[in-house]
Amino acid sequence: MKIVEYPNQKELQKVLERPAFEVTNLEKTVQNIIKRVKTKGDQALKELSLQFDKVEIKNLKVSSEAINDSKQFISNELKKAMQLAAENIAKFHKAQIPKEITIETTKGVTCRQKPVPIQKAGLYIPGGSAPLISTALMLAIPTRLAGCKEIVLCTPPNKDGSINPAILYAAEISGVTKLFACGGAQAIAAMAFGTESIPKVDKIFGPGNQYVTMAKQIIASQGIAIDMPAGPSEVMILADETANPEYIAADLLSQAEHGPDSQVILVTNSNVIANETLSSVDKQLKTLPRKEIAVQSLKSGAIIIVKNESEMITISNEYAPEHLIIATQNTEKMAQQVTQAGSVFLGNYTPESLGDYASGTNHTLPTNGYARSYSGLNMDAFFKKITFQKATKKGLELIGPFVEQIADTEQLQAHKNAVSIRLKTMKDED
Amino acid sequence: MKIVEYPNQKELQKVLERPAFEVTNLEKTVQNIIKRVKTKGDQALKELSLQFDKVEIKNLKVSSEAINDSKQFISNELKKAMQLAAENIAKFHKAQIPKEITIETTKGVTCRQKPVPIQKAGLYIPGGSAPLISTALMLAIPTRLAGCKEIVLCTPPNKDGSINPAILYAAEISGVTKLFACGGAQAIAAMAFGTESIPKVDKIFGPGNQYVTMAKQIIASQGIAIDMPAGPSEVMILADETANPEYIAADLLSQAEHGPDSQVILVTNSNVIANETLSSVDKQLKTLPRKEIAVQSLKSGAIIIVKNESEMITISNEYAPEHLIIATQNTEKMAQQVTQAGSVFLGNYTPESLGDYASGTNHTLPTNGYARSYSGLNMDAFFKKITFQKATKKGLELIGPFVEQIADTEQLQAHKNAVSIRLKTMKDED
Repeated sequence: MKIVEYPNQKELQKVLERPAFEVTNLEKTVQNIIKRVKTKGDQALKELSLQFDKVEIKNLKVSSEAINDSKQFISNELKKAMQLAAENIAKFHKAQIPKEITIETTKGVTCRQKPVPIQKAGLYIPGGSAPLISTALMLAIPTRLAGCKEIVLCTPPNKDGSINPAILYAAEISGVTKLFACGGAQAIAAMAFGTESIPKVDKIFGPGNQYVTMAKQIIASQGIAIDMPAGPSEVMILADETANPEYIAADLLSQAEHGPDSQVILVTNSNVIANETLSSVDKQLKTLPRKEIAVQSLKSGAIIIVKNESEMITISNEYAPEHLIIATQNTEKMAQQVTQAGSVFLGNYTPESLGDYASGTNHTLPTNGYARSYSGLNMDAFFKKITFQKATKKGLELIGPFVEQIADTEQLQAHKNAVSIRLKTMKDED
Repeated sequence: MKIVEYPNQKELQKVLERPAFEVTNLEKTVQNIIKRVKTKGDQALKELSLQFDKVEIKNLKVSSEAINDSKQFISNELKKAMQLAAENIAKFHKAQIPKEITIETTKGVTCRQKPVPIQKAGLYIPGGSAPLISTALMLAIPTRLAGCKEIVLCTPPNKDGSINPAILYAAEISGVTKLFACGGAQAIAAMAFGTESIPKVDKIFGPGNQYVTMAKQIIASQGIAIDMPAGPSEVMILADETANPEYIAADLLSQAEHGPDSQVILVTNSNVIANETLSSVDKQLKTLPRKEIAVQSLKSGAIIIVKNESEMITISNEYAPEHLIIATQNTEKMAQQVTQAGSVFLGNYTPESLGDYASGTNHTLPTNGYARSYSGLNMDAFFKKITFQKATKKGLELIGPFVEQIADTEQLQAHKNAVSIRLKTMKDED
């Protein structure tokens, strides 16, 4: 991790460049996976899991017994923690459920916007050495709250073909209706196009490795919606001399341990904070089990020293970080100026991991600068807002002539005629 | 247009298949256009406009004089019509502006969701024989209401390099700040990556031909957000014996005149309505200036006769039409059951053209079945919803241990440590 003092615009751009790890032939490989799933269905899922994940899948569908039995394998402490997290996520997301809006725009012309849940939602929980229970909660709870009719969850099984009971328990308390032991790009293809076992869904949510991400990108161009584009995780911290360098270091490392391509940036107006954070990072790093990963990540990390708060916030808005921690004297004032970020953590007592797990905000967030135009996952993502309009005879009389006028200008005679024929008939009836 | 009586599921699928007109080498051509704009900027825009649109563009930027002067070239009737449309669009969209939400999830843990406007919005208005003033209003008014800092509008010029004054006037009354005479895939590339004249934007909105659509699809996978995927326009009408076949015919034709690939479908439980609509279509078609286009479109159109209302609504939800007209005795009851549609028009006095121009709803809608997962354009599209969270010491004490528990299970020690180090320090301070 390097310290960069008072960089100019060009130096800054270089420091803030996001690391990119390209996989050779990624798109072609994933295109082939999708094609195989489309043509061979379940059979392809089993073959591909054997080929890529070295797992022999006997049953794609996880039995309701396995889901039911999961609770006996989980400690009470973990159960309590998951329940607290689930409650907070539910509270914050419930408050976001969109409401119906009705407006009479012209007398006799009523317009309505009605949120209707996505009917079939597909959730993907990545595998790995440990169960990503927080991801299961973050995806499944809003889906259930929205009232999606069918919730399908795919996650890669362990080497013995089973799913970690903590994932099963998270799915159960979140209301997932159908769970499948299937991972990778093939799981995304299965949910996008359907197989004998796995239902076709309308929208797919959830993170994943580069294969999963590419699969989501490809199916998004083929008619299936996805939550958002994805890239490596990142955090930016804005701190002044009132911040605690040990806390900052811990927060930087909690992001750095995600993956070698994670990016961690501290922007500060204090040389002391810069230097002490650097020492703290070195110190705390030593004891981390995922030290090797963090070390890789820190290579693209940086501590940027700037003159004042205003420069901090300008850099942050320009970078559009996925996670933004603001630990300064004027936390609230600076928060007001944030225009581009995924999720923001305020003050010295709000580490990113609070939002990753249990504060109630969603941890599915726009990376890679997508915060300029995308929101983190929220209830809107689970609804379509359908508009309805109804004109009475009077309403049509009032706005019809204006519609005829504009249709005329756009040279769309049939558009005009749809109004004219009604106005004429109504006149004849009088 | 054919009548299909009581089709089975397979026949139905065939009838409802959306027409697809493929352009050879479309993707490759557009990829090349994008590459040229990226490397050669304004120069490429001028060359490509000459090559594809046969227009020599002298000034990409439309002068403020031209915008100011536009009003003198427009009739008072058209001005009034545009103003009424603009007012209604503004009324309905203003009511949709998302509000900030704050929830204390656990004592001392406050979560906030704050809508922040997209900073730079790019709008595209397609060219053609007539000015698409309605598209300009439908895109620019919500953008201005959202408070986007920069609104950039691109539209192809006429053969003499000028922009139709009606478009300029629409832009002016909608608050567009920068207007450029540039169309096609090159305009999309320019807004996505920026040129000397045209600013880079964060999100691009608006319809277009297959080149424009492909360009939007490509840039969407390169980090620039777009409003929604696009396809040919379509309408489905559900009608029973209380509907007026002349009105239905007019509505079908107002869709059919859009393009040869537009799809128009009537679903009815009445043989009389089916037959009379067919005759009316033939009769009304004769006088249309865009008759040739409508005839092409009607070839993929169909009148489907079913047994009852319930079958009508099932078919409609399955098809997920962009526009849905419900002209039945139980209009409201049926409207309640709509789960997948873009915009819905209720009763005998609400032709689609009302919503196309002036009722207040947006006419930028999901086609091609995308209504299963996408909304029509609405205020959400112009905002990112950023989450903020703040824990007090007490809040951290309450949820910290649960966060540690979950981090432990996910084997993310640094995530845990970010909490532990704070809890420990706080304890030491006591």
